[in-house]
Amino acid sequence: MRTAVYPGSFDPVTRGHLDLIRRGARLVDRLVVAAAVNVGRDALFTLDERLELLKAEVKGIRGVTVERFDGMIVDFVKRKRASAILRGIRTVADFEYELQMAMTNRALGGGRLETVFVMPSPQHAYLSARLIREVASLGGDVSSFVSPRVEKALRAKMRERDSWTN
Amino acid sequence: MRTAVYPGSFDPVTRGHLDLIRRGARLVDRLVVAAAVNVGRDALFTLDERLELLKAEVKGIRGVTVERFDGMIVDFVKRKRASAILRGIRTVADFEYELQMAMTNRALGGGRLETVFVMPSPQHAYLSARLIREVASLGGDVSSFVSPRVEKALRAKMRERDSWTN
Amino acid sequence: MRTAVYPGSFDPVTRGHLDLIRRGARLVDRLVVAAAVNVGRDALFTLDERLELLKAEVKGIRGVTVERFDGMIVDFVKRKRASAILRGIRTVADFEYELQMAMTNRALGGGRLETVFVMPSPQHAYLSARLIREVASLGGDVSSFVSPRVEKALRAKMRERDSWTN
Amino acid sequence: MRTAVYPGSFDPVTRGHLDLIRRGARLVDRLVVAAAVNVGRDALFTLDERLELLKAEVKGIRGVTVERFDGMIVDFVKRKRASAILRGIRTVADFEYELQMAMTNRALGGGRLETVFVMPSPQHAYLSARLIREVASLGGDVSSFVSPRVEKALRAKMRERDSWTN
Amino acid sequence: MRTAVYPGSFDPVTRGHLDLIRRGARLVDRLVVAAAVNVGRDALFTLDERLELLKAEVKGIRGVTVERFDGMIVDFVKRKRASAILRGIRTVADFEYELQMAMTNRALGGGRLETVFVMPSPQHAYLSARLIREVASLGGDVSSFVSPRVEKALRAKMRERDSWTN
Amino acid sequence: MRTAVYPGSFDPVTRGHLDLIRRGARLVDRLVVAAAVNVGRDALFTLDERLELLKAEVKGIRGVTVERFDGMIVDFVKRKRASAILRGIRTVADFEYELQMAMTNRALGGGRLETVFVMPSPQHAYLSARLIREVASLGGDVSSFVSPRVEKALRAKMRERDSWTN
Repeated sequence: MRTAVYPGSFDPVTRGHLDLIRRGARLVDRLVVAAAVNVGRDALFTLDERLELLKAEVKGIRGVTVERFDGMIVDFVKRKRASAILRGIRTVADFEYELQMAMTNRALGGGRLETVFVMPSPQHAYLSARLIREVASLGGDVSSFVSPRVEKALRAKMRERDSWTN
Repeated sequence: MRTAVYPGSFDPVTRGHLDLIRRGARLVDRLVVAAAVNVGRDALFTLDERLELLKAEVKGIRGVTVERFDGMIVDFVKRKRASAILRGIRTVADFEYELQMAMTNRALGGGRLETVFVMPSPQHAYLSARLIREVASLGGDVSSFVSPRVEKALRAKMRERDSWTN
Repeated sequence: MRTAVYPGSFDPVTRGHLDLIRRGARLVDRLVVAAAVNVGRDALFTLDERLELLKAEVKGIRGVTVERFDGMIVDFVKRKRASAILRGIRTVADFEYELQMAMTNRALGGGRLETVFVMPSPQHAYLSARLIREVASLGGDVSSFVSPRVEKALRAKMRERDSWTN
Repeated sequence: MRTAVYPGSFDPVTRGHLDLIRRGARLVDRLVVAAAVNVGRDALFTLDERLELLKAEVKGIRGVTVERFDGMIVDFVKRKRASAILRGIRTVADFEYELQMAMTNRALGGGRLETVFVMPSPQHAYLSARLIREVASLGGDVSSFVSPRVEKALRAKMRERDSWTN
Repeated sequence: MRTAVYPGSFDPVTRGHLDLIRRGARLVDRLVVAAAVNVGRDALFTLDERLELLKAEVKGIRGVTVERFDGMIVDFVKRKRASAILRGIRTVADFEYELQMAMTNRALGGGRLETVFVMPSPQHAYLSARLIREVASLGGDVSSFVSPRVEKALRAKMRERDSWTN
Repeated sequence: MRTAVYPGSFDPVTRGHLDLIRRGARLVDRLVVAAAVNVGRDALFTLDERLELLKAEVKGIRGVTVERFDGMIVDFVKRKRASAILRGIRTVADFEYELQMAMTNRALGGGRLETVFVMPSPQHAYLSARLIREVASLGGDVSSFVSPRVEKALRAKMRERDSWTN
C-alpha cells in the first residue's frame, strides 16, 4: 500500500490546498494531510481549528486522513511508513524553496525519502494562505479563494479579533 | 497496480536520467521509460540505439520497462493505463517548460492526467544530454556524465562520424 | 486619444491572445493588434490567414483594429502615433525576454517609448501558439486553447499538409 | 479621462519611484500616487513625512497627485474611478509577487481591475527603499539612490535616531 | 598582491562556506573571510563563537584569514586594500539578491568595487545556515551539512538552550 | 601571475562586452579575450573581422590580449595557464545556462577550473549581440549598444548583404 504525506500549515486550508489533495489522493492509496503544530507567530487559527476545518473539507475524498505533526517531517513520514512527501509548486520562488527542503529531507532520510511535486490548477496558482488572511483582515471578499465553511470561519475569527481590540 | 510513464529523448541516457529512473521506480509498481520516436534534427543516436542503451542500463531496476512512443504522450499514457507522467526538474527554466507541458497534458487528458515531478540528485542537476553530445563531439571526457557503456557508444558514434567527414 | 500597439505573430491567435486584447482594449481608446509579416521558418499560417482569423475574432471588441507590420516595431508605433506597446507576461522566461525587448525599444524610441505589461487570465497563462501548433499537428484536441473558428482553421491546415505529404 | 493609481510605501521615495511616476504620467491623464498608511514595523518615516517628500518630488510632473490610502487598494481604486493599478517590475522576485497581487486584486475587483506594469530605467532597477534605509543608517552615501531633498531628510532622521539612542 | 573579502554571517560555517573558501583561496593571494558583527535577532552563535569555529575550519587553507567586520562592507574592503568581494550564488533567489547588493556596493565604492561570484559544489548548493540551525534545533542529524567540529558546537548549543528552557 | 580567460562569440563586440572586459582586467594580471572559431550558422562577422574589431576596441586596456580558440574552452584555459574563466551574468536565464557550463567545465577540468562571474553595468544588462544584429539588419540605430567603430562595421556589413540579395 502506497502512502504519501502532504505537510503544511493550512492556516486556513484554501481551494488550492484542496485541489492538490484531490490530485494527490488519485496518485496513492493513502494520503496523510499533516498539519504542523508550530506555524510561527503570525498564525491566525489554532491547531485544533486548522485540523477541524481540514477534516471537514476532505471528508469524502477517498484515502485521505488528517493528522497533526510536530518536530521533523522525516520522522513523521517514517512513522507513517510513507514512501513520499507530496508538495505543490506554483512559482519559481516555491520551486527553489521546495528544492532546498526536498534535498534536506532526502539527506535527513538517508538518501531515499523522495518529495514528489504536483502542479495545482492554474486558477489556484496565485492563492496563498498568508494573502487570504490579509484580505480577510481588511474585510475583503475571500469566497473565490476558500470554501464557504472556511470563509465563515475567517469571518468569525475577524469578529472575535475586533471585539478584543475594541 | 500503480503505473507511471517517464517520457524523454534519451539521446543518450545520462547518469541524471538513471538517477531519476531509480527514484521513480521506488514510488510506483511499474515505471515505463518511454523513448520518443521523433527527437528532432539534432539527434545523435537512432531510436534503436537509444532503446538498446536504455534497456541495458535499467536492467536490474525492479519494475522498469523500456518502450518507444510516437504521437502524443497522453495517448501513450492511456494505452499503458498509467496514472501519471514522471518528470525531473533541475532548473527554473525546466520548471517553467515542464509546468506548461503538464498543464497542456492535463487539458488534453480531460483534467485528470497528472505529471509528478521528482528532483534528481544535485550532482546530476547540471547534466544535459545536449551538452554531453557536444562535449563528446569535441573529444572531451564524459565519464562523469554517463555510464561506461554509454561512454563507449558515444566514442564509437564519434569515430563513425569522423570517418564520414574525412 | 490614447493608442497602444499589441504586436505578435498570432500563428494562430489563441484564447490567451484574445484575453489580453480584451483587457488591453479597456485600458486605451484604440488598440492596434499588429501581426508581424515575418515570423520565421516554422510559421504555419500565411500572413493573410493570420490577419483574417484575428479580424474575425476581435470583431465586436470596441476600439480594436488589426494591421500588419514589417520592420521595426518602434517605427510602426510612431506611424500609429501610439504612446505604448502592450505585451502580456506569463512566465519568468517571458519576463526576461520582454524586459530585454522593452529596454531595446525604449532606446530605439529615444527613451520615451514605453512597453506596458498586462497579465493574462491564469487559465490561459500556459498557452503558447507554438505548443498549440504541435498538438494540432499530432491530431490532439485544441478546443480549450483556441476559439472554434481557429480550431477549424487548424484542422483544415493539417488536412492540407497531410495531402501534400501523402 | 484615464486614471491610474500607483500604490506603495515610499519610505522614502527613491529615484526609481520617480522614474516610474514620470513614465506612468505619460501613459494616463491622471496618476494618483497612493502612499499606504500601514507599512509595517520597520517603517522609518511617518505617513506625513512620506507624503510631504512625495508631494515635493512630483511637483511639476503633469497630471500627478499624491494621496494616502488605507485598507484594500481595490476600494481606493474604485473611489478614484481609476481603470488600472500601475506597478514597476525590476526582478523575477518582483514579478512573482506582483503577479500574485495582480491576480488577487483582479479577483477582488470583479475580474475587471487591471494592473499594468512598466519597467524602470535599468540604472534604477537595483534600488530598494529598504536597502537605502539600511545604507543611510550605516552612514553611507545615498546620493545616487535618492534626490537631494530625500537625502537631507534621511540624514536628519538618522541624527534624530542617534540622539535618542545616546 | 590580490586580496578579496568574503563577507557573511557564518552562523555557523557550513560545508558550503568551506567549499567556497577553498575555491576562492585558489583565485587570489589573500582571502579575508569577514564575519559580520550584526547578524539579526535569530542568531544562534555569538560573534566570538562564529569566529572561533571559522578560524579552526580554515586553518591550513593557504592565504585565508578570518576577521570581524562592522558597518558597511565597502569600508572594510577599502581598509583591507582588497580589489573584490567574493560571494557564492546557489539559486535564482540568491542571484537577484546578490545582484542588488553588488550594484549597491559598486555605487557606494565609486563604481570600481567589484563583486565576483563563484558557484559552490552542487552537493552543497542546497545548504543554508538557517535551515541547518532549524534541523539542529529539532534534534536532526546535521553531519552531512557541517564539519564534525561545527556539529559538536551545534549539539552543545542545543543542550545549553534546553537547560535554559527547562 | 594571475590569468583569466573571457570566452565568447563577440559577433560583434558590444558595449556590454567592453564593460565586462574593463572590470575583469582590474581583477587579474592578464585577461585573455578568447573569440570562438565556431559560432553557429547565424554568424554575421567572420572570425577575422570579430578579432580585428575586438583588438581595436581593447587597445589601451592594460593586461588584455585577444586570441582565437577552437575546441573545448578547458583545453584553451590549460594552455594559457589561466586559473579561471571570466563570464558575465545579466539575467536569470544567463545564470542557469552559465551555472550548467561552469559545472561542466569544472568536471572537465578535474574539479579545479573555476568560472568567476562579474555583473555588467546595469545600462548594459539588456544588450545582446543577437538582438543588435537584428536591429542593425532592420536599419535601426545601434549607437547606444556598440562603439562607433563597430557601428560602422555593422553598417558596412549590411550594405554588403543588401548588394548580394539585390
